[in-house]
Amino acid sequence: MTITPPELSIFESLESEVRSYCRGWPAVFDRAQGSRLYDEDGHSYLDFFSGAGALNYGHNNPVLKRALLDYLERDGITHGLDMSTTAKRRFLSSFQEVVLAPRGLDYKVMFPGPTGTNAVEAALKLARKVKGREAIVSFTNAFHGMSLGSLAVTGNAFKRAGAGIPLVHGTPMPFDHYLDGRVPDFLWFERLLEDSGSGLNQPAAVIVETIQGEGGINVARPEWLRGLAELCRRRDMLLIVDDIQMGCGRTGPFFSFEEAGIVPDIVTLSKSIGGYGMPMSLTLFKPELDIWEPGEHNGTFRGNNPAFVTATAALEAYWADGQMEKQTVARGEQVEAALREIAAEHPRSGATYRGRGLVWGLEFTDPARAGAVCRRAFELGLLLETSGPESEVVKLLPALTVSPDELDEGLRTLARAVRDTA
Amino acid sequence: MTITPPELSIFESLESEVRSYCRGWPAVFDRAQGSRLYDEDGHSYLDFFSGAGALNYGHNNPVLKRALLDYLERDGITHGLDMSTTAKRRFLSSFQEVVLAPRGLDYKVMFPGPTGTNAVEAALKLARKVKGREAIVSFTNAFHGMSLGSLAVTGNAFKRAGAGIPLVHGTPMPFDHYLDGRVPDFLWFERLLEDSGSGLNQPAAVIVETIQGEGGINVARPEWLRGLAELCRRRDMLLIVDDIQMGCGRTGPFFSFEEAGIVPDIVTLSKSIGGYGMPMSLTLFKPELDIWEPGEHNGTFRGNNPAFVTATAALEAYWADGQMEKQTVARGEQVEAALREIAAEHPRSGATYRGRGLVWGLEFTDPARAGAVCRRAFELGLLLETSGPESEVVKLLPALTVSPDELDEGLRTLARAVRDTA
Amino acid sequence: MTITPPELSIFESLESEVRSYCRGWPAVFDRAQGSRLYDEDGHSYLDFFSGAGALNYGHNNPVLKRALLDYLERDGITHGLDMSTTAKRRFLSSFQEVVLAPRGLDYKVMFPGPTGTNAVEAALKLARKVKGREAIVSFTNAFHGMSLGSLAVTGNAFKRAGAGIPLVHGTPMPFDHYLDGRVPDFLWFERLLEDSGSGLNQPAAVIVETIQGEGGINVARPEWLRGLAELCRRRDMLLIVDDIQMGCGRTGPFFSFEEAGIVPDIVTLSKSIGGYGMPMSLTLFKPELDIWEPGEHNGTFRGNNPAFVTATAALEAYWADGQMEKQTVARGEQVEAALREIAAEHPRSGATYRGRGLVWGLEFTDPARAGAVCRRAFELGLLLETSGPESEVVKLLPALTVSPDELDEGLRTLARAVRDTA
Amino acid sequence: MTITPPELSIFESLESEVRSYCRGWPAVFDRAQGSRLYDEDGHSYLDFFSGAGALNYGHNNPVLKRALLDYLERDGITHGLDMSTTAKRRFLSSFQEVVLAPRGLDYKVMFPGPTGTNAVEAALKLARKVKGREAIVSFTNAFHGMSLGSLAVTGNAFKRAGAGIPLVHGTPMPFDHYLDGRVPDFLWFERLLEDSGSGLNQPAAVIVETIQGEGGINVARPEWLRGLAELCRRRDMLLIVDDIQMGCGRTGPFFSFEEAGIVPDIVTLSKSIGGYGMPMSLTLFKPELDIWEPGEHNGTFRGNNPAFVTATAALEAYWADGQMEKQTVARGEQVEAALREIAAEHPRSGATYRGRGLVWGLEFTDPARAGAVCRRAFELGLLLETSGPESEVVKLLPALTVSPDELDEGLRTLARAVRDTA
Repeated sequence: MTITPPELSIFESLESEVRSYCRGWPAVFDRAQGSRLYDEDGHSYLDFFSGAGALNYGHNNPVLKRALLDYLERDGITHGLDMSTTAKRRFLSSFQEVVLAPRGLDYKVMFPGPTGTNAVEAALKLARKVKGREAIVSFTNAFHGMSLGSLAVTGNAFKRAGAGIPLVHGTPMPFDHYLDGRVPDFLWFERLLEDSGSGLNQPAAVIVETIQGEGGINVARPEWLRGLAELCRRRDMLLIVDDIQMGCGRTGPFFSFEEAGIVPDIVTLSKSIGGYGMPMSLTLFKPELDIWEPGEHNGTFRGNNPAFVTATAALEAYWADGQMEKQTVARGEQVEAALREIAAEHPRSGATYRGRGLVWGLEFTDPARAGAVCRRAFELGLLLETSGPESEVVKLLPALTVSPDELDEGLRTLARAVRDTA
Repeated sequence: MTITPPELSIFESLESEVRSYCRGWPAVFDRAQGSRLYDEDGHSYLDFFSGAGALNYGHNNPVLKRALLDYLERDGITHGLDMSTTAKRRFLSSFQEVVLAPRGLDYKVMFPGPTGTNAVEAALKLARKVKGREAIVSFTNAFHGMSLGSLAVTGNAFKRAGAGIPLVHGTPMPFDHYLDGRVPDFLWFERLLEDSGSGLNQPAAVIVETIQGEGGINVARPEWLRGLAELCRRRDMLLIVDDIQMGCGRTGPFFSFEEAGIVPDIVTLSKSIGGYGMPMSLTLFKPELDIWEPGEHNGTFRGNNPAFVTATAALEAYWADGQMEKQTVARGEQVEAALREIAAEHPRSGATYRGRGLVWGLEFTDPARAGAVCRRAFELGLLLETSGPESEVVKLLPALTVSPDELDEGLRTLARAVRDTA
Repeated sequence: MTITPPELSIFESLESEVRSYCRGWPAVFDRAQGSRLYDEDGHSYLDFFSGAGALNYGHNNPVLKRALLDYLERDGITHGLDMSTTAKRRFLSSFQEVVLAPRGLDYKVMFPGPTGTNAVEAALKLARKVKGREAIVSFTNAFHGMSLGSLAVTGNAFKRAGAGIPLVHGTPMPFDHYLDGRVPDFLWFERLLEDSGSGLNQPAAVIVETIQGEGGINVARPEWLRGLAELCRRRDMLLIVDDIQMGCGRTGPFFSFEEAGIVPDIVTLSKSIGGYGMPMSLTLFKPELDIWEPGEHNGTFRGNNPAFVTATAALEAYWADGQMEKQTVARGEQVEAALREIAAEHPRSGATYRGRGLVWGLEFTDPARAGAVCRRAFELGLLLETSGPESEVVKLLPALTVSPDELDEGLRTLARAVRDTA
Repeated sequence: MTITPPELSIFESLESEVRSYCRGWPAVFDRAQGSRLYDEDGHSYLDFFSGAGALNYGHNNPVLKRALLDYLERDGITHGLDMSTTAKRRFLSSFQEVVLAPRGLDYKVMFPGPTGTNAVEAALKLARKVKGREAIVSFTNAFHGMSLGSLAVTGNAFKRAGAGIPLVHGTPMPFDHYLDGRVPDFLWFERLLEDSGSGLNQPAAVIVETIQGEGGINVARPEWLRGLAELCRRRDMLLIVDDIQMGCGRTGPFFSFEEAGIVPDIVTLSKSIGGYGMPMSLTLFKPELDIWEPGEHNGTFRGNNPAFVTATAALEAYWADGQMEKQTVARGEQVEAALREIAAEHPRSGATYRGRGLVWGLEFTDPARAGAVCRRAFELGLLLETSGPESEVVKLLPALTVSPDELDEGLRTLARAVRDTA
């Protein structure tokens, strides 16, 4: 595929230097369908990035699209703050029937604003309010968002520095595998908690991702998550699972923590909850934690009703039975097999892979290699981004609706990109 | 109008206690057009609330709707992070041609995430980074958002308490009129700045609303804003105008600060910038401040392309000439005349009014009266909310596209509600 | 007087650059008696500085010296932490009988460590603990100490910058006269408190000096102090009077707040409380505030028993009757008369003066003049320091035991120094 | 020994509830000599507590006493702020000649105020100023002082809670042995530092005690200290050794870090540096760190000249040769032998002991036992305090000048107290 330089001048002259993805993918995208994007010159790209996890059902998914167009055409409420609307009621009912009830989960639902960081800010506020403490424990290489509350529990030093103020009230603990199994799980964390002389401010809550997406596709073992849940229970800390990137089926089940059999006190959802890539997020919590006063937290766009409509359509189309979960597991096996082959083919690259469901990481010993692979993949028509503190991991995040053939095509392109950058 | 109790059970059982507007307006809204909302029982409501300022062009504005449906139907990019897209390019071009260039404004445009609080967080980060200082000055009764960075410069004690941590790095100064003209403008602020022994941490920036919407429709005089801009210049502080609620024509001109003839260093826009009530926000700043590193601030939904499409349509339909501004001023005079009459009719209520363009406040001596008026107005089919620290102000925020007849109808309903609650 | 350059090499080579007084007074002092210091070359200096207020009873006061030598000779306990000792009992009894009881003050006595900043840190801790709030209000140009808690409520920007972290939880309010009488007392402060939208975190306490020593000899009027006390009472804030420099008779009465007739909730004393210039401090508070747990605040040198001995001797020698207070007032009148003459003699210097008891400030329009006066005074054998944010005030702080002749001598030297620097 | 109840009423009625040692030792002490204290009823107590380490040369040491009395009698300067004085010069010269030069240490000397916490506050300020960073790493069970800066790096939860504000900018790391050797030294710390995604704010400095006195007599191995020093060097962090309790010969050599062969960037000294139990402290740092501006940190009692006199006498009497160090090591062996016997005699108590020089801890499995032993020891005329987060360690801190017979007497009393509490 030959790419002629796109017309980028207004982006370069008018948009802030903070722009980032557009630098790695110098194309001007115009439309998209399923797992394919098309730029204005008609080039097509296979998407293994999925809007950073916000497009689990693919671009402009026809089922969701129909529901959305119908809603807009009939002048359904677009913007509703936290007014009651028929679209919100339908979403709440579906979420209850399709997601919560079958899993035996008893959560109150909060619409904290339409972005992931809104959901995390609300979760942290609530945890602090409930426990009357300020401190939060997060994990190495965590990513929870860019507003100040979320950023304080995010690991990335570069993003933290952007705050312009010292970020406090958070303490990092080692994520699973962080110390390469040389230290028993939670040895350090529990010692700090049990020792009144340790200097750790007693935490209100622990916030964790089951698989760290931005942090490098670090996969926590179910037993580690169970150990953490048990520690939280024993030491009077709330457990917050940030399922913004890994929820909505990314790892197979609807919630990524289901496999571990734990029930977090608070859960955040965003990205793919709206289904269609439109801003929406939820903060879920156990009913006994619902001590909010009316309006104590709010936000203009917390009632993005078109997203409620597509969210409802997605739940009803994909989660009314167990098909989606099974399919994701099967697709994941397809990915894993391909990655196994790639790693075996390049023993000197030190390539390792890890993942679950349809989130996978391919890490190279030389951090620069991951970037080179993604650049080459782009030339070959495949969208892939890196993750990890040194961008050392190629991150695979295809749509859950990807077909086996598309998956195969993308994996072969990836294999070629690895080969071409050797 | 008789309202039969709506079916609210799932909202009450499943949604968090934090929900708020739905309590004052116990209806389930279903669809909306222009200045009218309709609940599921077919009752119609005239909307003088406009999604808290996010619906300046009315509900489901047909011009914007057409553009949106076309875009969705042709599978335009929905979710684009900060990838370059044709929809974004068109928005940037229109924003440049219709908004910035005619006003001689040279701003870089940042997409900080789709909500107002994202825009404020980005503005504060940038100001701190540029100046290398942590402190921010805000004003009494300011409202800038609910995430921790924005909340720290927000005045409302109830919302601040929700943070669960002490909010620091912000110092409030008196907004215009705050001390009833008994003190020269900026006397206190400037003394603090000029006195190296004052104890005020040197601020990186000052953040201000030209009219405080949530704070009670407090209108800063143009000369006060000019004084503030001059003080910022003289004392090496960046001036951030938070135009989230008052921008996009709410006060008449596109930016609310145009009347004062000032050019802020940083401007935040959200709410009505997307035009159709869909989440979108911008942080604008002078080119020399654009010291962001790529990706230093980000956010999943910063590329909400459907909102770019409706935003573009709104700019081109309403801002290509000066008609909208003139019309808003004219409508504002209509509102003012009606409020003058109401105040005159109820001298013992101590009712006073203030506003500009199509944002007005009607304040009562007895704070409970404002709430009573809004409740009665709802019964009469008019949506109005209160604002101010004690909810003592009835806030009028009709769509800019409201017709003179609708305006008249609403103002007559308001007059009746005031009468009925006397 | 001719001064040959003293041998300063070890100070210059070994002592940190942070040293300060020794730079303005390039002599090596050896011994002292009453209001006179002598350097190693035998030059004598009249002391109008009194160890920054720690030597109210003069250097090596013979009454106190006798008590101290006796105590040391008989091997009295030197270092006692907070063990009960006979020296401490005698101090407590005297303090109760001579100071508290006659003034009808019912205070618990805490030994928080031997320095002023220890006393302030303890006061702030206690206030926060009692009220369960973090915020403290202090005043423009306040000085309360150099450890982080005290520094956060100190005004001086240069000293604040030394912290190396942003100083938070403190908000400055205008001290008396700060806005030149153009604003009613507490107008701004009270508006902030009464307005739940003001953005001021509800303060646990207000900390104030009745006369700001380091801040430039700013004298609060009794009615202003009463207004402040009343405001604290009305708005549920504790009133802390930092009487470290102005207490122990500096302004006439033992406590500087006596003239205003107020009873602070918490009082800090240090500097001259030990009498002999040895480290000692007290935090006093109303009995109902004594919610400390044993050992919750401590400090190695909180039981500096030799200081208890000289403190007791000072109380019994000088405060058993009202003589000291009367004498201080009389000496103050002598100072005031002389300053009046100096100001009258130099109308173009813009010299103004202010003070009470034996603390006075002489301010010049040109800030550099105050430093020049002090340097010239040193050459003439008089020790004087400057104060104020720009060191624009010559500060007179003679010993309370200064004789009328010494006072006259010093004031004449000051007059000459002013003349010589014209 | 029979103790009749002492007259404690004024302590109980007037002194704050915060008082602590006096509760465990219900006697009123009157005088002291060497290792003996005497209460007002003439009872004598052998002192294995030494003013929490401030009396390394015993009470009212005759050599120091003579120097002090001479100085006071001849009206030497008592209170000098940071004026140059002959007493200060003599101290600086002795400190240079007796302490620094023989050890090849090139430190600037700062007088930060007379207490340990002043020295720590100054050290932290300087480290932050030099590195331009806020974060400090401290260790589990560290104790550095009670003012806010020092308290933030102190481990004890009870004392931290006294702050009344959240203590931030500090992160605890595991002290030596904290994880029982199950984890390689600094594995966790170094991983956090090397990983830009760890979430640890890059520290300006690490503050450490070589032996944690208040924390439970936790003894760091020399190789651990060397590892820490090396880590600091490699990762651009300043190393601060808080030698307030362990310096001045407590562990044998003058500085406790000498044995490890490390040279900290900053050292704090207090407690026994003045020799006679009078408040004095020092902050030492490498010359290249001396970027203080004159007066940037100050404090009224930083020039406690009588303490300079006794400090000089102590240096010259005890540190001009290596005798003191040798003697301390020998006395330490005597203590160790006795503790070995006690532990052996009580195998079921789980008693373990540890220490170096003349600082030792005897820990019991049952934390209550340590308190019981100290109470019984007091009845038997021996002063001993507990330490550790649960007061589970009996702490032995005899004067360095204790005689072998006194030591033997005390150790036998201790053995009896252990026996009596079995």
